[in-house]
Amino acid sequence: MRRFWINGFALAEKLGLGKRINMIMQAAFFKLSGILPVQEAYGYLKEEVIKNYGSQGEKVINMNFAAIEQAENSIHKVDTSGLSREYKKVKKITDNKTRENTPAFVARILEPMNRQRGDNLPVSTFAGMEDGTFPTGTTCYEKRGIALYVPEWDPDKCLHCNLCSVSCPHSVLRPLLLTGKQAEEAPESIRLRLRPDKGYPGRYYYMGISPLDCTGCGNCIDVCPAKGKALRKVPLQESGDTLLWNYCESIETEKLPEGKESVKTSQFLRPYFEFSGACAGCGETPYARLITQLFGDRMMISNSAGCATVWGGSAPSVPYTKDKKGRGPAWGFSLFEDNAEYGLGMYLGYSTVRKELREKLMLLHEKLKAEGECSEELEKAWLDWEQGFYQGEKSREKTECLIKELEICKKGIFSAEIREILARKDYLVKRSNWIFGGDGWAYDIGYGGLDHVVSTGADINIMVFDTEVYSNTGGQASKSTPRAAIAKFAAAGKNNRKKELGMMIMNYENVYVAQIALGADPVQALKAIREAESYPGPSLIIGYAPCVNHGLKEGMGKSWHQQKKAVQAGYWNLYRYNPERIKEGANPFLLDSGKPSSGFREFLMSEVRFASLMKKDPVLAETLFTEAEEEAAKRYERMKKLSDLS
Amino acid sequence: MRRFWINGFALAEKLGLGKRINMIMQAAFFKLSGILPVQEAYGYLKEEVIKNYGSQGEKVINMNFAAIEQAENSIHKVDTSGLSREYKKVKKITDNKTRENTPAFVARILEPMNRQRGDNLPVSTFAGMEDGTFPTGTTCYEKRGIALYVPEWDPDKCLHCNLCSVSCPHSVLRPLLLTGKQAEEAPESIRLRLRPDKGYPGRYYYMGISPLDCTGCGNCIDVCPAKGKALRKVPLQESGDTLLWNYCESIETEKLPEGKESVKTSQFLRPYFEFSGACAGCGETPYARLITQLFGDRMMISNSAGCATVWGGSAPSVPYTKDKKGRGPAWGFSLFEDNAEYGLGMYLGYSTVRKELREKLMLLHEKLKAEGECSEELEKAWLDWEQGFYQGEKSREKTECLIKELEICKKGIFSAEIREILARKDYLVKRSNWIFGGDGWAYDIGYGGLDHVVSTGADINIMVFDTEVYSNTGGQASKSTPRAAIAKFAAAGKNNRKKELGMMIMNYENVYVAQIALGADPVQALKAIREAESYPGPSLIIGYAPCVNHGLKEGMGKSWHQQKKAVQAGYWNLYRYNPERIKEGANPFLLDSGKPSSGFREFLMSEVRFASLMKKDPVLAETLFTEAEEEAAKRYERMKKLSDLS
Repeated sequence: MRRFWINGFALAEKLGLGKRINMIMQAAFFKLSGILPVQEAYGYLKEEVIKNYGSQGEKVINMNFAAIEQAENSIHKVDTSGLSREYKKVKKITDNKTRENTPAFVARILEPMNRQRGDNLPVSTFAGMEDGTFPTGTTCYEKRGIALYVPEWDPDKCLHCNLCSVSCPHSVLRPLLLTGKQAEEAPESIRLRLRPDKGYPGRYYYMGISPLDCTGCGNCIDVCPAKGKALRKVPLQESGDTLLWNYCESIETEKLPEGKESVKTSQFLRPYFEFSGACAGCGETPYARLITQLFGDRMMISNSAGCATVWGGSAPSVPYTKDKKGRGPAWGFSLFEDNAEYGLGMYLGYSTVRKELREKLMLLHEKLKAEGECSEELEKAWLDWEQGFYQGEKSREKTECLIKELEICKKGIFSAEIREILARKDYLVKRSNWIFGGDGWAYDIGYGGLDHVVSTGADINIMVFDTEVYSNTGGQASKSTPRAAIAKFAAAGKNNRKKELGMMIMNYENVYVAQIALGADPVQALKAIREAESYPGPSLIIGYAPCVNHGLKEGMGKSWHQQKKAVQAGYWNLYRYNPERIKEGANPFLLDSGKPSSGFREFLMSEVRFASLMKKDPVLAETLFTEAEEEAAKRYERMKKLSDLS
Repeated sequence: MRRFWINGFALAEKLGLGKRINMIMQAAFFKLSGILPVQEAYGYLKEEVIKNYGSQGEKVINMNFAAIEQAENSIHKVDTSGLSREYKKVKKITDNKTRENTPAFVARILEPMNRQRGDNLPVSTFAGMEDGTFPTGTTCYEKRGIALYVPEWDPDKCLHCNLCSVSCPHSVLRPLLLTGKQAEEAPESIRLRLRPDKGYPGRYYYMGISPLDCTGCGNCIDVCPAKGKALRKVPLQESGDTLLWNYCESIETEKLPEGKESVKTSQFLRPYFEFSGACAGCGETPYARLITQLFGDRMMISNSAGCATVWGGSAPSVPYTKDKKGRGPAWGFSLFEDNAEYGLGMYLGYSTVRKELREKLMLLHEKLKAEGECSEELEKAWLDWEQGFYQGEKSREKTECLIKELEICKKGIFSAEIREILARKDYLVKRSNWIFGGDGWAYDIGYGGLDHVVSTGADINIMVFDTEVYSNTGGQASKSTPRAAIAKFAAAGKNNRKKELGMMIMNYENVYVAQIALGADPVQALKAIREAESYPGPSLIIGYAPCVNHGLKEGMGKSWHQQKKAVQAGYWNLYRYNPERIKEGANPFLLDSGKPSSGFREFLMSEVRFASLMKKDPVLAETLFTEAEEEAAKRYERMKKLSDLS
């Protein structure tokens, strides 16, 4: 067997093609495979270039022609007689991870499947997993190492704002806030880079990075507000962080003082979602990560078909993960259309069991009292738990106290009853029920169910990752696709408006509704997510999510920044409709984004989905762009009026 | 065989039970059948009375006890030695109808099926009907004669307003406006009762009535505004109209002068919907009848599962009917959930064929011109047709002119092309596409589809018969069920609000939306239906429909009046949202019903669905009634504000 290598990325970058190596790799394939006479094959490739990229102009055509022509000079034969030092170093780390501490599932199922050998697994491998349940927390064993460049942290420039971590679609950046004791015990290479944190005196700040899980999108660097940037890109093989990640992963930031629920603080919480297979720069996954950071240890998630299923649970690995206590989200997916109903079923199932337990506890309490066996501590723990029955935030703590007291008296006269309750202790905590899905689900295919579930008044939270298009199936228009965007089934530019999902659902008046854009205003987004979760009824959050289907001209490394542009241009509005405010006699609707500055047209032109219409049909584009801009202005005015109502 | 008869209705009326004869008939059954010792059987019946009607109070229990006790004295043995004169008279009429002029389908399929002998029909009977299509216009052969009392018209008191006809759920009243010639040729018994019409000089007014198709609800009498009532109820067997119906049915009111599109005028138009199996006093069918009167000869209707399927197309008979030219609605039903999509399919299918024909005509026109064969008349007819391509109202007339001209030149040089067009001439007329369904479909099960279809911008009209409950399946709560109403799955009174379907869909801004109540304001309803149909995009009309499931305390003979009470109390609001007004710079939203007078609570208490909650749980009822009333007041205020926006 002969082996060759080609640094396609280096050539692509040299030619101005960015990371687009498809033509280079095809040319290399034809050069080496001998399937066709090489020049004939190149001819066909060039025809394809004209067919596919012709509409993007001569420059693009020429770059691709050059790629085809220059590929062959970049091909080198591989000498495998010796493996490089770098390769050995990386291999050692991944081997440590996968050999020594590897769960049986990973060794026996995940790795063979990832090696494309899943078909060879005998049925007996799956004994005990007949219901199809796969363990969570397994993406951390994959260590794909697909980034060309990864971020490297400069502790001296860093402002400790954690924006990089908020923006990371793959949970690769993990800010740590070590206690003095943890700091002392840290390895020297970490200790040297620890810096005291101004916000939390006595704590030391460190930015953990997992280079082998990074996709290299670069948003973290882009969003860094520090002078001269506290993150810079380095080639993957030059990153020192690979060796340090095991340590960072093993450390959890200890509980911080209460009352500081800022964006920064949220990032010291463990993400229960990491290293998914989402595209580099994905606009969806940061929402999922943030939500799990806040509620992950008591979450149940129902998911529709779509990208969120693919990055959320494509076999064999699952990015939703567990903490050291084994707690983390339960995640399930049924069909595209029944996501909301499936989530309602999860909610009803758990609620019914929990209410049964509550009755059993009440009865137990009466019996214990009658026998004079109810300790003061148990009495208090039970009352606390009762009072906080619907309080999600405090529920874990109160439940732990109750369990502790129940354990104490479980050997007493009501041993059987107490053991029965403790056998289902996982149900004592108030769960955080979530329904995740994309716009194809929420606006179209699952809308009937979404509407029905919110009408029930159930305490369920719905998160819509709004890419304004069916992303996962290749870019078909949904009812969320905005006017003037080009998409499949709207190839001539969509000529009707985006559906006002949030406004429609607000008509129920008892549903919490928010429209957010994490990249544009993380403070508002965090506020909305917290309010939605604590609202004792249905909640709907619609989050703007830039996507590879949008064709950002600056690339997906700017997907975070693009959200800011969308909001500033008035293309996307931020608001929160909180029914709790009605009770206080206040206007439930708050418009959180200010008057759009100019730049609507510029925003459209910064994305291929719009800009290509201008190339294809300038007259139509002019009409649709103008309509879209007018529509956006009217929408803002309408929201402003709604917001100003007393 | 022994035969007995009992005038259950007479006894029920005497005892104050109205038309409720169930206990009387059950008691009579046990008296005659000897299945159980009679007194034991009566005991069981009384237990059932307490179980089922106990919550309605002692008076109701006593009435039913009396019914059980007195039934046996009302049983008479039948002497069949001679048939009554009345029986012979009625039989002759129905025989005339069914024997002499009966279509083959009626004689061979409908009648055996109605006699419960459908299972005996050999498969060969259905040869030629393999696709399941049944002919329309067949309910008129059933002549069920189920009314106890039917209306009788007094020509001297009548104001010629036609409200009786508008209110009739079964299209039993047919006002005629005869020309002088028609008047002269009418049978004497008709001629003597003709009266000159003040609104249409030279025309003579007559009110045709079909007693054997009447269900005896009495709404026609209730709504009659004439002093001393121009309609009075007479026992079915005493009605003279039975003999005159054949004549009335044969007469069609000749075209009236244009520009008088009043409610009165609408009732001279032929209904393409008659004698359905809907309940007496049904609030749904008058909408269907009125819509067919306006657009029936070019209508296509898709229907969801629900009452509208049962009264609209339950085998073997079909109430949608045809005129003398064979024109009338095409009606189809697929599933509960896909009604909107099925209707969209009908629309797309016909539109595609029609557009193809348009292109063929254009080509033909060019060819004829080139050959100098295009007559001035054809040129004009084609241009007229072209200009009116999207004008529903005028489409029939323009198409007829075009067909006439095409017929003239079909033997010429382009004979093949012209014959090809004429073979599909039914597609030349602009069709009126409708989607009919109940609230169970529109608010719940089919909402996702409804939402999607309106989002497409297709020129489709949706009519929702809103009974606020799943009527056909026995009264389950839908999202349209209002707060405080008792329904299945909401047995303790629904404790959340009715979904604001119209308001939600208005968010699209390019959908015509109206909320109407034909019985409360027929002028507004007629206006809305006409506007919706002529609007060149999607339309949604939500019509309030009293239903047997509401338990009107005054009975379904007041179902028309009940609509007025609902609107006056502010329980139901009338509005129209017309996107065409936006183009004119006007506010698209018009609130058509005035400030609610008092009477909200009285309205609730006039229907068992609400009043029974007051009996069952007065404290909860008080809370929910108050909430519902406050909600209604706020809703009115919100709509008023929306309406007042400049």
